[in-house]
Amino acid sequence: MQWAIKLDMAIPRPIRVILRGVGQVFFCGNAITGLIFLIALYVGGITAGLAATVGVVASTITAYVLGFSEDDIDAGLYGFNGTLVGPCLFLFLENTPLLWVYVVFASILSSVVLAALIRILIPYKIPASTSPFVLTCWMFMIAVYSFDSLTRGPVLPAPGIPEAIAGTDLPATAWLSMANETTELWYVALTKGIAEVMFADNVLVGILFLTGIAITSWRGAVMALCGTFVGVTVPVLLGASQNLIEMGLYAFNPVLTMMAIGWVFLKPSAGTALLALLAGILTVICQAGLANFLAPAGLPTLTFPFVLTMWMFLFAASMSKHWSSQ
Amino acid sequence: MQWAIKLDMAIPRPIRVILRGVGQVFFCGNAITGLIFLIALYVGGITAGLAATVGVVASTITAYVLGFSEDDIDAGLYGFNGTLVGPCLFLFLENTPLLWVYVVFASILSSVVLAALIRILIPYKIPASTSPFVLTCWMFMIAVYSFDSLTRGPVLPAPGIPEAIAGTDLPATAWLSMANETTELWYVALTKGIAEVMFADNVLVGILFLTGIAITSWRGAVMALCGTFVGVTVPVLLGASQNLIEMGLYAFNPVLTMMAIGWVFLKPSAGTALLALLAGILTVICQAGLANFLAPAGLPTLTFPFVLTMWMFLFAASMSKHWSSQ
Amino acid sequence: MQWAIKLDMAIPRPIRVILRGVGQVFFCGNAITGLIFLIALYVGGITAGLAATVGVVASTITAYVLGFSEDDIDAGLYGFNGTLVGPCLFLFLENTPLLWVYVVFASILSSVVLAALIRILIPYKIPASTSPFVLTCWMFMIAVYSFDSLTRGPVLPAPGIPEAIAGTDLPATAWLSMANETTELWYVALTKGIAEVMFADNVLVGILFLTGIAITSWRGAVMALCGTFVGVTVPVLLGASQNLIEMGLYAFNPVLTMMAIGWVFLKPSAGTALLALLAGILTVICQAGLANFLAPAGLPTLTFPFVLTMWMFLFAASMSKHWSSQ
Repeated sequence: MQWAIKLDMAIPRPIRVILRGVGQVFFCGNAITGLIFLIALYVGGITAGLAATVGVVASTITAYVLGFSEDDIDAGLYGFNGTLVGPCLFLFLENTPLLWVYVVFASILSSVVLAALIRILIPYKIPASTSPFVLTCWMFMIAVYSFDSLTRGPVLPAPGIPEAIAGTDLPATAWLSMANETTELWYVALTKGIAEVMFADNVLVGILFLTGIAITSWRGAVMALCGTFVGVTVPVLLGASQNLIEMGLYAFNPVLTMMAIGWVFLKPSAGTALLALLAGILTVICQAGLANFLAPAGLPTLTFPFVLTMWMFLFAASMSKHWSSQ
Repeated sequence: MQWAIKLDMAIPRPIRVILRGVGQVFFCGNAITGLIFLIALYVGGITAGLAATVGVVASTITAYVLGFSEDDIDAGLYGFNGTLVGPCLFLFLENTPLLWVYVVFASILSSVVLAALIRILIPYKIPASTSPFVLTCWMFMIAVYSFDSLTRGPVLPAPGIPEAIAGTDLPATAWLSMANETTELWYVALTKGIAEVMFADNVLVGILFLTGIAITSWRGAVMALCGTFVGVTVPVLLGASQNLIEMGLYAFNPVLTMMAIGWVFLKPSAGTALLALLAGILTVICQAGLANFLAPAGLPTLTFPFVLTMWMFLFAASMSKHWSSQ
Repeated sequence: MQWAIKLDMAIPRPIRVILRGVGQVFFCGNAITGLIFLIALYVGGITAGLAATVGVVASTITAYVLGFSEDDIDAGLYGFNGTLVGPCLFLFLENTPLLWVYVVFASILSSVVLAALIRILIPYKIPASTSPFVLTCWMFMIAVYSFDSLTRGPVLPAPGIPEAIAGTDLPATAWLSMANETTELWYVALTKGIAEVMFADNVLVGILFLTGIAITSWRGAVMALCGTFVGVTVPVLLGASQNLIEMGLYAFNPVLTMMAIGWVFLKPSAGTALLALLAGILTVICQAGLANFLAPAGLPTLTFPFVLTMWMFLFAASMSKHWSSQ
């Protein structure tokens, strides 16, 4: 919205760049949106908020020091991967003083990897998106098995063969036949689906995120809502784990996919909205597949199902006579 | 052959495009060849034939609807990945009504992934080949561990560490010292090696496939025969599992590699025939390696050993002063 | 140094090309340096020396026969991957006569993969480095589980879930509080860190390698020393396995990373020296992460942590206004 853009420009440059970095997690290069996201992160938990702050500052400073594109830095593009690195490592690893140093190094690496992927993808005009965050966090999380001074937290899935995943949970197909009793379940799952993009298992955080997105773009907010709806409905229909669906863990990837395809990177139309829906559905299957593929190594998918699906659809869209990138 | 090309053009366009899609599984953009392949698929099993039909139709329609290159669609290039997706999912997953929906979505995704890979590979003039089929089927097969409404079939290898693979079977080195008794074994292994490209464990299907290829190109048929010979001989020499060799499961990848290198993508000559032989031998080792690498996740190699080896040899050939692409 | 360059040119061409191939393992396109490396390899063990000789000859001849760039062949670029393939397969697999044939095929493939990767990386002006050696050896090592005539040696890690790695060894953090008693440990670890680039667990070999590098470039030797220092210090601080650190198994990757970033591929300056230090530190974490990621398949990292880190930093450097490639 107009007023949000004006307010964004009124904020002193260093703070604006950092806040935009937070906003870019949901493709919003606006400091007001970023501020709402940051407040939401602190609402979700002080440690998560601090870790995100350290991450976004470290990755943005790295980009300045290493001399990467100032335009990209100003847009907050060198901030959102760091924003995600911080809370991710504090969620999955044991909280120790050394972990703060570890987060700083991971944030630095995320900016190096982002610059590298931007370079690789230049000929194709395709965004690197959150892939630097995912690749860096995978490396830093799985490395701790070799180090005595850092430890896996209880949330990080233990390494093992994927069959162990099946049958541990109640499938959610029951939801379909008892819509009345489950209205609250749906409400919780849908909002948490948005909150989990930044690792928050919290309804209020999801609502704040959605508000922040709506300030930047209505279409963006609608796509986010459709994404979380797909990310709850499709796994219910397929009979996925009720527990994972309730926590929004199938929804945060379709949220990002539908925002990327239906709003950010292709020219908005009815056609791209349908394409976004198709991409959202396929993201769910991609997430289940990747989760089982990574199980032997003990890694979570993070946002890689979104990255993979978005890449496939954007590369494919550039071969179509129907769509053009924005 | 001339008459096959004429007959191909006489078939109504929609049917021609679909049949060419089936033919392209063995690089044959000819509807008559495709018709023979499709008949062979139904000979192998009604379900496999139906699944292939659903797959090729769904993936081809997807390409039309999403607006991809009409020339490519007409040549059947948006059909062969779908042709393979169908029988693959019906072989490895439990046959349920929902599986037909699953096959349709996988076939749709295979066309999106193909367009994406064509775009990525444009600067290099390298074909995507069956990689979209492999990537899509891996994702869709391993995803079912998370869903209650779809189940792994008995043929899909259970996830586990690769050492489990060793020692479960009689090694085939004995074949070498008793050529007389094993003439029939060789005959069966060689024909099944061609049939297994489309998941058929059936001698007659292999002979029909070879006939279909010969109609399009003699050199193609010779390369297919050499490929299956390499795919039986080399694993016998290395002492691989007799059971797998007999079923042709080491041969279908070298068949495709030798056809691609020795006939389709490089200018035919004595030199490229030798290069194809080298590529065929290395495909066998690549297949054994990839099979063990994928074992912890419980995935079969499908045709990825062929794709990897072909890519390496085609990229390398473009750096050579000897060969040029066709 | 000047005299080394003159001597290099005085050696007959075929021998010069082969020796340069050995020298290129440490980025030294000089036959005298290569000769010192080769002598060091034989000092480390006759089999390793012979295997390296077979590998470098086979991969170089392959490049000639397949018609790849003569300039690249003359610089020894088609030799160093073969040089590494030979000792690698003889270290990790059981020594049998058939293994020599296996090494020849792997060396041939390494040259094909190198040409392919050179082609892929041309638009980016990024070197393939030792990635063909790593990819080829991974494939050939893990393939043996399927073959009766080749066997895993005792050094190759058995497939299993990564947690098994943790807790098997004394962490090395104790070193920090007892600097006196550990002077010899440090000396051994630092020299072996250089020797392990070519799989030698031997102090003298490390010293010979360092001498060979110094003959070509002082800056190269300094970077190698800094790299092995980082590769011992950082894992000690993080509490990695004392046993692995003592054998130099955390150090050979940072050695190569720091030489690549701080000497070979970027214009030498104080800035690139600091960048090399950062890259060296991150290589250690990358190595730990990759080791645990590969554990389920039973594969060692080889030099892939170096390759990955170097690629990220070189791609990123090409996006920076500070650095330019040499």
